[in-house]
Amino acid sequence: MLYELYYWPSIQGRGEYIRLALEDAGAKYIDVAREQGGMDKMYRFLEGPSVKRAPYAPPFLKSGNLVIGQTSNILLYLGPRLGLAPRSEADRLWAHQLQLTVADLVEEISEVHHPIAGMLYYEQQKREAKRRAEDFRKRRIPKYLGYFEKAIERNGRSGYAVGNRATYVDLSLFQIVEGLRYAFPRAMKRHERKLKRLAALRDKIATRPRLAAYLASERRIPFNEMGIFRRYPELDG
Amino acid sequence: MLYELYYWPSIQGRGEYIRLALEDAGAKYIDVAREQGGMDKMYRFLEGPSVKRAPYAPPFLKSGNLVIGQTSNILLYLGPRLGLAPRSEADRLWAHQLQLTVADLVEEISEVHHPIAGMLYYEQQKREAKRRAEDFRKRRIPKYLGYFEKAIERNGRSGYAVGNRATYVDLSLFQIVEGLRYAFPRAMKRHERKLKRLAALRDKIATRPRLAAYLASERRIPFNEMGIFRRYPELDG
Repeated sequence: MLYELYYWPSIQGRGEYIRLALEDAGAKYIDVAREQGGMDKMYRFLEGPSVKRAPYAPPFLKSGNLVIGQTSNILLYLGPRLGLAPRSEADRLWAHQLQLTVADLVEEISEVHHPIAGMLYYEQQKREAKRRAEDFRKRRIPKYLGYFEKAIERNGRSGYAVGNRATYVDLSLFQIVEGLRYAFPRAMKRHERKLKRLAALRDKIATRPRLAAYLASERRIPFNEMGIFRRYPELDG
Repeated sequence: MLYELYYWPSIQGRGEYIRLALEDAGAKYIDVAREQGGMDKMYRFLEGPSVKRAPYAPPFLKSGNLVIGQTSNILLYLGPRLGLAPRSEADRLWAHQLQLTVADLVEEISEVHHPIAGMLYYEQQKREAKRRAEDFRKRRIPKYLGYFEKAIERNGRSGYAVGNRATYVDLSLFQIVEGLRYAFPRAMKRHERKLKRLAALRDKIATRPRLAAYLASERRIPFNEMGIFRRYPELDG
């Protein structure tokens, strides 16, 4: 199967959770919008009058005749096909539940620098962003990451989030740790004292051969201040 | 199967999307936290040291030995069991995708009155809320509801969101229209001129016998200013 991934070409953003899964599995895929003319093709799916089931927003994945939107939904679909999902229904529901909680956290991260409107520039909502960032650093980061830390702990000795093998959830948690370290280096340094398992999971994922090759390649877009994880020192307290 | 629903007892909130599905299907369930001692039972799942797979937050559903969290995940699980999901994998992915977009909208609705922090009172972020509400009314409501309107249109003549029968997505869209009419009556009056199919779907869902009985019962908690849909006239422009 040749997958087509549609996502903004200059940021990691929500597309990165899909890229990590495809790359780790060694799947064949085209990152469509990053190729010449790919943006037009992406807009055709979003706005074309003849598209019966248009996604609300990128990322979306074309797999054969299916066009699947919503990051967590794409991973729900891809997980078993890429060997990155657990086997039983109960475990798959749990993995999806964790992924949806990752998605909630990702949404909150993007709200930190855009608490008023996604359509406005950061500079137009900087004052509000500072207020929001304080709550995010002090309460939300430890609440979310503490929750994932506990999930890994209670999963047993494997060090993974679900079962005894890596799943797409672990790849997403890797990305969360990487991104938060980029955006909030000072706050993360403090919080990570209590997040040993999450940090160990991050390290374990980073050394998976195909993933390590991807991270070292030009296909991995560097973090930047157009994406979701943004390094604004004034928001790091 | 006797389901146990765990959710805050005094608001509709995110639990309502589950209640609507259970009620419409005539399923047997206990709304645990609304019963005596139920709050303690709910907290035990959230914070108990022996819970292996604790939900991050309510709502969650106990079904036999399974404890399932995240509203959209619960509906993914319940849908087929309640006769409220389409049959094919492609249709189920599409229904889930729409539900996740509903969840994104619900999150934005709660952000309107709490743009800085969920832990602060509305009065402590009223100025920011006013700014955010303007964007929400002018851009976000028409973008989201226009998207759902188009999805219903492109689904064909049934008037439903997915296929030829009502699914949990239609029940959730009913709730979205009801809630937004409650919270933003003036803005909705303007927008609804272009949302004929969504309004017709709302009316069709409201007359389903079991749902109508539920809505008229004391089990349906009235909208109030502790929930997600809040009527603050200053935010309705």
